[in-house]
Amino acid sequence: MTEESKTLVLAIPIFNGITVLDAVGPYECLHVLPNVKVVFVSHQAGPYKATLGYLSLSATHSFDEVPHPDIIVVPGGPGIMLLLDDKPFLDWIRKAHETSMYTTSVCSGSLMLGAAGLLKGLTAATHWNVYDILESYGAKPTADRVVQEGKILTAAGVSSGIDMGLKLVSLITDEKTAKSVQLLLEYDPQPPFDTGCLKKAAAEPDVIERAKSIGYRLRAHAIDNHGNHVGEMVFS
Amino acid sequence: MTEESKTLVLAIPIFNGITVLDAVGPYECLHVLPNVKVVFVSHQAGPYKATLGYLSLSATHSFDEVPHPDIIVVPGGPGIMLLLDDKPFLDWIRKAHETSMYTTSVCSGSLMLGAAGLLKGLTAATHWNVYDILESYGAKPTADRVVQEGKILTAAGVSSGIDMGLKLVSLITDEKTAKSVQLLLEYDPQPPFDTGCLKKAAAEPDVIERAKSIGYRLRAHAIDNHGNHVGEMVFS
Repeated sequence: MTEESKTLVLAIPIFNGITVLDAVGPYECLHVLPNVKVVFVSHQAGPYKATLGYLSLSATHSFDEVPHPDIIVVPGGPGIMLLLDDKPFLDWIRKAHETSMYTTSVCSGSLMLGAAGLLKGLTAATHWNVYDILESYGAKPTADRVVQEGKILTAAGVSSGIDMGLKLVSLITDEKTAKSVQLLLEYDPQPPFDTGCLKKAAAEPDVIERAKSIGYRLRAHAIDNHGNHVGEMVFS
Repeated sequence: MTEESKTLVLAIPIFNGITVLDAVGPYECLHVLPNVKVVFVSHQAGPYKATLGYLSLSATHSFDEVPHPDIIVVPGGPGIMLLLDDKPFLDWIRKAHETSMYTTSVCSGSLMLGAAGLLKGLTAATHWNVYDILESYGAKPTADRVVQEGKILTAAGVSSGIDMGLKLVSLITDEKTAKSVQLLLEYDPQPPFDTGCLKKAAAEPDVIERAKSIGYRLRAHAIDNHGNHVGEMVFS
């Protein structure tokens, strides 16, 4: 990570109904590197409302303005369900992937990689509640937290973007720098419970049901606020 | 968590030079609850630039408009160093704390609780690089990840806000709901390295030095972009 390092452009697409932590986990890991420049892209520059509408994030650039980022991180969220046939978004992913150094996703963001045709025959992670949709794109869903297939990295649900972000840091710099970023973010997790994945929560089916129910409310809000319905029941 | 539950207002102050993950960790845990409404407050409503300026978050309300939130989460970031004597911000914290159900902080956000006089004699967590400043406010800094002292909760650096957020969910709802939110966020962390806190990184002093160096750059940027210097060297 010398002064002469090429500056790498990290592009994170944002959209209405994004799960903010999906984007912010990798962003926080990567943006502190002196050789990384972050851009938030979307159909057009400007604010987009995150899930439930409490918070706006601003896209700094339109898709057209950033055709060839070095790193792509596609976050997920209930709003992704309204974008799975969005041609400008999918075209941008396909085109950007042709020249990217790493193409990555967090949570249901991997559905966009799938919809763009990038995951055919590949093992990929995603949120536990959308394995079936990922599979419909020809991918092999796995419960692994972070999966690397060549230059494509996919991560599991929401918080897994931090794990993937640190792995990305190690890939584009070195292990020592990644360890330093982990310390800077004080990522020494101490989850209060042990229900962080489907397998661990299996002993408490009512926890799984309640998680689905909370997710269903988020999805319903995303749909109600964008006048658009998808055929598949995702969070139910 | 019945339909009749009182709606709890969660207020998260934002500012230029905020570390986004500090805010987004607890936000992501809490905002999915049907009985929680989130507001982002600041001196005035509108966009504020996060550390290094890549991303803007929008405050939805001014401090004056939200004098009595039920829950307060004060995030940190390099920009906090320019706010430690900011009277409107500190007055808001003091006033809001008088009636709050929970007053909390993440990372260097606890310095604001300290500056507001709320931590005198109390044990409190903060980012490992600012223990000395926290101590100067009469608090007893600890390396614990989440600390509860009555209705005040403080968390360690950056990513610790997720752990605190889930604890807060269990306090304002019940353990079952908190477990469900943990599953929804798929918080089953698998950090790639074991350098997530000062103690664990102690065997590699160059990792600590590099983390400080990265942090120093963030602090320098925050200062350079706000034409204001603080007396204490924080990230060095």
